[in-house]
Amino acid sequence: MTYCVGLLVNEGMVLLSDTRTNAGLDNIATYRKMFLFEDPGERIVAILTAGSLSVTQTTIARLREAVDHPDQALGPSIMQVGTMLEVAELVGNTLASVRRDVDEKLSAMRQTASASMIVGGQRRGGAMRMFLIYPEGNFIEATEDTPFLQIGEHKYGKPILDRVVKPETPIADARKAVFLSMDSTMRSNLSVGMPLDLAVIRRDALRVDTRQRIERDDPAFRAMSDAWSKALRDAFTGIEI
Amino acid sequence: MTYCVGLLVNEGMVLLSDTRTNAGLDNIATYRKMFLFEDPGERIVAILTAGSLSVTQTTIARLREAVDHPDQALGPSIMQVGTMLEVAELVGNTLASVRRDVDEKLSAMRQTASASMIVGGQRRGGAMRMFLIYPEGNFIEATEDTPFLQIGEHKYGKPILDRVVKPETPIADARKAVFLSMDSTMRSNLSVGMPLDLAVIRRDALRVDTRQRIERDDPAFRAMSDAWSKALRDAFTGIEI
Repeated sequence: MTYCVGLLVNEGMVLLSDTRTNAGLDNIATYRKMFLFEDPGERIVAILTAGSLSVTQTTIARLREAVDHPDQALGPSIMQVGTMLEVAELVGNTLASVRRDVDEKLSAMRQTASASMIVGGQRRGGAMRMFLIYPEGNFIEATEDTPFLQIGEHKYGKPILDRVVKPETPIADARKAVFLSMDSTMRSNLSVGMPLDLAVIRRDALRVDTRQRIERDDPAFRAMSDAWSKALRDAFTGIEI
Repeated sequence: MTYCVGLLVNEGMVLLSDTRTNAGLDNIATYRKMFLFEDPGERIVAILTAGSLSVTQTTIARLREAVDHPDQALGPSIMQVGTMLEVAELVGNTLASVRRDVDEKLSAMRQTASASMIVGGQRRGGAMRMFLIYPEGNFIEATEDTPFLQIGEHKYGKPILDRVVKPETPIADARKAVFLSMDSTMRSNLSVGMPLDLAVIRRDALRVDTRQRIERDDPAFRAMSDAWSKALRDAFTGIEI
């Protein structure tokens, strides 16, 4: 399982992903699910992935190959297409195409594979945008009304986001919100786990502001988690009905 | 959709269910999902239901018919069998049998129907017990380690239970915990909705202590929900990372 979340607020974008993958409960591994494509001052594209690892890895590999070897690519890469909307379309088409390939291989086993992605970023002269790409390649966009997108095990960590995240939320609070959302998810679903990858991209900076891996024994994260548990219990004690 | 939750603590049992049912998003209705069978001083059995209404209604009707007309029943009713374990088995067998009947009718449409239930209660001379009955009729039991059971849309409301519910939790706090768990669920999933049905059964009382319907505009529930939102936001503000 996986949990990835992206917040698009007025000050910019905060992205957080876990790293746990499993093939059954007895085969657990750590894989990065956050991929950053950066051309500082020109364009920043962040991709978070959830779902079948064979699908997400191949999709990211194809996208990266087009970025690294534009001369050998069939078309423009995500770092070349005109707009963020076109980036989302290109990621969606690549994902859908890989999924079809993998599904075909799996069809003999009566199995299917699928994946979904969060794609966010900004190009010079354009707006900062964030999309959720479905397994079929279609997508939706984060808006002022719903300034966050989630993929994977999204339910446990949604109540806190529903309550505190608005477009006006400062980056520091957005960072705290995704950490607490992830903390609730990891407590309730063992198949979402540390380490975590965090990225902060400020609006119009066109580069990654913060890139951080939070390891299992990170003291600041542990302290936050404990403080949040205590604050929730105190809040619970204070409520009357 | 549905959300039902049952807590089994040292002092007794607290059960809460919503009442919203829907066939598609454009056909929403209110149906009771909590059923109490009471023989004061002898036995109390509470059943909460989630899933296909045609399955749950028929299951409850068959169980009730055996209770109301023991002379016409094929075997002992849930108010007659020897132990709470046998009550769970009887409910499970009835549920599985109804599900098979309904599934057979639906098979021509390539559809299936299923349901799950929480069954809790106590007989004179026996322990208070609570079970989660799966659609196939098998079941698990609430224990000291996991003193709560949920059916339906269970994920949004689980983090608060994970954090505050223990066997030592007093009934008053257990009541508050199920209300807050339901509140989080209703905020995140529109297909879970008011009014709510609450039942409190104290250990060894062998009768229902509190039976309460909380209507949509209930001022105490509204005040609790607002206070919890404020407490969460305040707690959020106080956290540092």
